[in-house]
Amino acid sequence: MFTANGDYANLKGNYLFYEVGKRARAYAEAHPDAELIRMGIGDVTQPLVPAVISAMHRAVDEMSRAETFHGYAPDFGYEFLREAIHKRDYVSRGIDVSQDEIFVSDGAKCDVGNFQELFSRSCRIAVLDPVYPVYVDTNVMGGRSGAFDPVKGGYANITYLPATAENDFVPELPKEPVDAIYLCYPNNPTGATLTRGQLKPFVDYCNKNGAILLYDSAYEAYIRDPELPHSIYEIEGARTCAVEFRSMSKTAGFTGTRCAYTVVPKDLVCRDEAGNTVRLRDLWARRISTKFNGVAYVTQVAAAAAYNEGYGEIMNTVNYYMENARIIRTSLEAAGYTVYGGQNAPYVWIKVPGGDSWAFYDELLDRCHIIGTPGAGFGKAGEGYFRMTAFATRENTIRAMERIKGGKA
Amino acid sequence: MFTANGDYANLKGNYLFYEVGKRARAYAEAHPDAELIRMGIGDVTQPLVPAVISAMHRAVDEMSRAETFHGYAPDFGYEFLREAIHKRDYVSRGIDVSQDEIFVSDGAKCDVGNFQELFSRSCRIAVLDPVYPVYVDTNVMGGRSGAFDPVKGGYANITYLPATAENDFVPELPKEPVDAIYLCYPNNPTGATLTRGQLKPFVDYCNKNGAILLYDSAYEAYIRDPELPHSIYEIEGARTCAVEFRSMSKTAGFTGTRCAYTVVPKDLVCRDEAGNTVRLRDLWARRISTKFNGVAYVTQVAAAAAYNEGYGEIMNTVNYYMENARIIRTSLEAAGYTVYGGQNAPYVWIKVPGGDSWAFYDELLDRCHIIGTPGAGFGKAGEGYFRMTAFATRENTIRAMERIKGGKA
Repeated sequence: MFTANGDYANLKGNYLFYEVGKRARAYAEAHPDAELIRMGIGDVTQPLVPAVISAMHRAVDEMSRAETFHGYAPDFGYEFLREAIHKRDYVSRGIDVSQDEIFVSDGAKCDVGNFQELFSRSCRIAVLDPVYPVYVDTNVMGGRSGAFDPVKGGYANITYLPATAENDFVPELPKEPVDAIYLCYPNNPTGATLTRGQLKPFVDYCNKNGAILLYDSAYEAYIRDPELPHSIYEIEGARTCAVEFRSMSKTAGFTGTRCAYTVVPKDLVCRDEAGNTVRLRDLWARRISTKFNGVAYVTQVAAAAAYNEGYGEIMNTVNYYMENARIIRTSLEAAGYTVYGGQNAPYVWIKVPGGDSWAFYDELLDRCHIIGTPGAGFGKAGEGYFRMTAFATRENTIRAMERIKGGKA
Repeated sequence: MFTANGDYANLKGNYLFYEVGKRARAYAEAHPDAELIRMGIGDVTQPLVPAVISAMHRAVDEMSRAETFHGYAPDFGYEFLREAIHKRDYVSRGIDVSQDEIFVSDGAKCDVGNFQELFSRSCRIAVLDPVYPVYVDTNVMGGRSGAFDPVKGGYANITYLPATAENDFVPELPKEPVDAIYLCYPNNPTGATLTRGQLKPFVDYCNKNGAILLYDSAYEAYIRDPELPHSIYEIEGARTCAVEFRSMSKTAGFTGTRCAYTVVPKDLVCRDEAGNTVRLRDLWARRISTKFNGVAYVTQVAAAAAYNEGYGEIMNTVNYYMENARIIRTSLEAAGYTVYGGQNAPYVWIKVPGGDSWAFYDELLDRCHIIGTPGAGFGKAGEGYFRMTAFATRENTIRAMERIKGGKA
């Protein structure tokens, strides 16, 4: 008798953004005249840049002729793209990562979600609170969470590291032993960043305790402060404990084009349940060879163009969104809200008057026709906050702020 | 202390095609003048068809303008593609599958590999022998295999259903209780097909024993015999037990473009480990929402074009490969080999003189500079056979056959 994975039953509710989208669709259907402004799901609105578009047309043409046609891509990505990533993101910053530690994929969400397959089932994970739900949900599905504990406001076997205004969004180290820590900087959803000095204790903790650090730096392109690190490998000791996830989604407007990459250093060595000494890089490579068939050629050409000849253009788009973030921050502050983030990240984290974030979601949707994301959806410590993204168009960003200023929320 | 998933340690050797590719590369490096003909990995050689190319150019242009730009795709695929698939592959054949049971993805290898995440850890699987290694390896990585048993020639906890010349490539039902059965027809690697009458006992077995059937029909476009079923849902009772995997890779030349889909009927209901009644469709939907971020817009437009205005063109390419298959079959028979498959499938399965398939691989590579795939790589019952694919160019297919005919192998 076939029996399904019972760990899925531990999942609490729907995937957050599915729920946010569903509510917004229901509202739109009931109010067909409402002009909704989407600042919730964090999807970009600006088109692919000209250099990327040209490269894609060229690649499509190559696919039209037998002599230049491309079949299966190399499992880990074409060398031309791995080289472009290597140079742009690591060599140019003097960071010690080698090309064969870079694995190209179709999305950081996939990579982050799949990486926990390399963990033993008994691995105890720690996450920030609030947190991007994928870290938690994929570990629930992998059997590491235990049941959801309503009193704790989280899963029994997951360690939560609160990051709120009370601690200036700087999480403390775990107070109980953990085996893996997920960090995300610039942070989704709070927009917070950590300095090198604030990241170092996490790297030291992992090396001292044989834990691993899953570092999501999908938003590093949004860092403005030259003192802030872009990569975890800027921190001494990270090569022996940290994995890094990066994405073209917000860097190059690739949410609908799909390209990302993960770095797994060869120095990251551990034991498996059978007592073997293994390199996580080799397990990840094996997972990819067995369960993945590479990223489309056209997409990889597009990503390489974004990193090479199109780099100035994609940075202009990043600047455009960061100007939106500034407008959101200053407008909300002028309207009397307390806001965080938005200075080195495309997310603005708003303190909710009254403290009920789903009520604020409904109110903002109903009164201002603005879709945001309730902080409670990101975890217990997210309650009392609300996330707005800077990815709308300039026009809609300004309209949204005018609606709020007009006293509609 | 972090501990890695010990199940990976049970994997026997490298992923087959990685190994085949590695040996070929080593040979090419040592013999730079050898003109290798690749008939191993099953990658296509013909370009994307004109209708697909036009559609991709149009879609790329849409991505260049804010008004027509596409961000995140719907998790399960755009409706325009799901509708095209639904009409072409199911409605037109009078098969009962609904559009919301179709999940678009970036590859059947990914879907087949990921689907076992929905199984309990104790689920016992049955596979054909020889078998596409992904079914086995992903269950090894998921902890369901036990150790590799050299005497059995397979994993301790996996049930193998031999399909060889001795039983006319028609496998028997499992002799021990199993919870999930993987079938692939037209078969990779043997090129065998099953009639409706031969598939019915598998569907009946699953319904009677509460087992599920994982049906991989990635090669259905290659069926020539009008009596053979293209979908498992042509078999009465399949909606309550079967999942179907399909791919554009070999149907539309998408190995380097990446699009596929999986069908999970709403009637497929089972229990999970916690005793809850669950629909596998809902678990699969949850997995996708949590761990996947959709297929690129340009790719989905390309796939829809292949299924709509480009359908005649992609079928011409399928015919081209099937003529290659005919040439391989008849040439090898004329050269004295016993061959199977290649009549409703792009794979020809050769009986190896002497019986050592890796030795034949080396011999064919060394004497004829042809790369094929040794049957032993597909399982114990694959030893003594060798797979050749029909996906080379016509010119190379003919050259390869001439080299063999010339007594070089």
